[in-house]
Amino acid sequence: MTYCVGLKLKAGLVLLSDTRTNAGVDNIARFRKMFLFEEPGERVVALMTAGNLGVTQGVVTSISAAVKRSKIDPEIESIMSCETIYRAAQIVGESMQEIQKRDRANIEAQGAAADATIIMAGQRKGGDLRLFLIYTAGNFIEAGEDTPYLQIGEHKYGKPILDRVIRSETTVDEAIKAALVSMDSTIRSNLSVGMPLDLAVIPVDTFHAHTQRIESDHKEFRQISDSWAQSLRTAFHALPSIKIT
Amino acid sequence: MTYCVGLKLKAGLVLLSDTRTNAGVDNIARFRKMFLFEEPGERVVALMTAGNLGVTQGVVTSISAAVKRSKIDPEIESIMSCETIYRAAQIVGESMQEIQKRDRANIEAQGAAADATIIMAGQRKGGDLRLFLIYTAGNFIEAGEDTPYLQIGEHKYGKPILDRVIRSETTVDEAIKAALVSMDSTIRSNLSVGMPLDLAVIPVDTFHAHTQRIESDHKEFRQISDSWAQSLRTAFHALPSIKIT
Repeated sequence: MTYCVGLKLKAGLVLLSDTRTNAGVDNIARFRKMFLFEEPGERVVALMTAGNLGVTQGVVTSISAAVKRSKIDPEIESIMSCETIYRAAQIVGESMQEIQKRDRANIEAQGAAADATIIMAGQRKGGDLRLFLIYTAGNFIEAGEDTPYLQIGEHKYGKPILDRVIRSETTVDEAIKAALVSMDSTIRSNLSVGMPLDLAVIPVDTFHAHTQRIESDHKEFRQISDSWAQSLRTAFHALPSIKIT
Repeated sequence: MTYCVGLKLKAGLVLLSDTRTNAGVDNIARFRKMFLFEEPGERVVALMTAGNLGVTQGVVTSISAAVKRSKIDPEIESIMSCETIYRAAQIVGESMQEIQKRDRANIEAQGAAADATIIMAGQRKGGDLRLFLIYTAGNFIEAGEDTPYLQIGEHKYGKPILDRVIRSETTVDEAIKAALVSMDSTIRSNLSVGMPLDLAVIPVDTFHAHTQRIESDHKEFRQISDSWAQSLRTAFHALPSIKIT
């Protein structure tokens, strides 16, 4: 399993992914699920992936290859050379469709699931911040003002805190905290989501991603995790009681 | 959908269920999902149901009918006349198997799901508090000291708070609060879980269930819900920030 969350705020994009993958419970490994493409001052695009690892690696490889080719030959269309970030989401969707067409029947013949989802976020010079979720079918949705975040993978455990605190107006610092608390709740409840984490922040109109890998001994993450656990217990014990007859 | 949770503490059993059922999103109704059987001073058994409503009503009807018959004829075995609460769980499982055998193929031929789960909890004179989860297949698991609670239906949103605060030693009052907070988080995140709620408390060695229906205007539940929302926001804003470079 996997958990990735992307938040689109007025102040920027905040992206967080875990790194655990598993085939069953006895084959657990670490794989990066966040991929960044950047042309300083011009465009930044981030991808986060969940689902069948062969499928998502196939999509990311094909997209990366096109980006490399488009740097040499500007006629070639890639997520970094295309006109808009919306078009970039279409390109990711088309790549997903190709891989599904090629591999899905064989994967399913083995009794495995070929489903995969991808969060794509970014901004190009002259455009707005965008945040998309691309489905197995290659179609996609975009985050808006009302729901300024998107999740893939094991999304339920970490959703309540996002619903409670995330608005478009939320600051980047607060959004980082919310993403980390959301991840912390997920890690506690689902063994197949695990450390380390990859965090990326793309402040609006900077076309640049600040990234950080958060290992399990990361001091500030541990502080957030411990202090949240403590605060929840304190808040819980302070709640009024209900007496039943 | 549905959310039901049962907690088995040293001090007693706490059971909470919602009342919303839906066939799609445009056919929503209220149905009781908690059923109590009580012989004062001798035995109390509670059932909570999730999944296909036809199936669970079939199981509950057949169990209730057997209980009635066994009151007249002590030779007839029912969850109230059988030797142990463990045997009562087997009886519920056998009833589930019968209904599945009778209806499953026809239900699935209509493209609907016949899956159902039941939480059964109770105590007989001379026995311990017991808490079981019976699956569609009729097999079941029992809650133990390490995980003193069981959930059915939409269980993920409400799980983190239970993991954080529920132990076997938790008091009944604290457990009621935890069950209500767990339900509150679920209702906020999943439209198909809804008010009113049915709450039952079975203190150890009393063989009696205290029950309460909690409507959406229930003053103390609203206080818990509002005060929890406020506390979470306060706790969240007090968390340390992570700065990334």
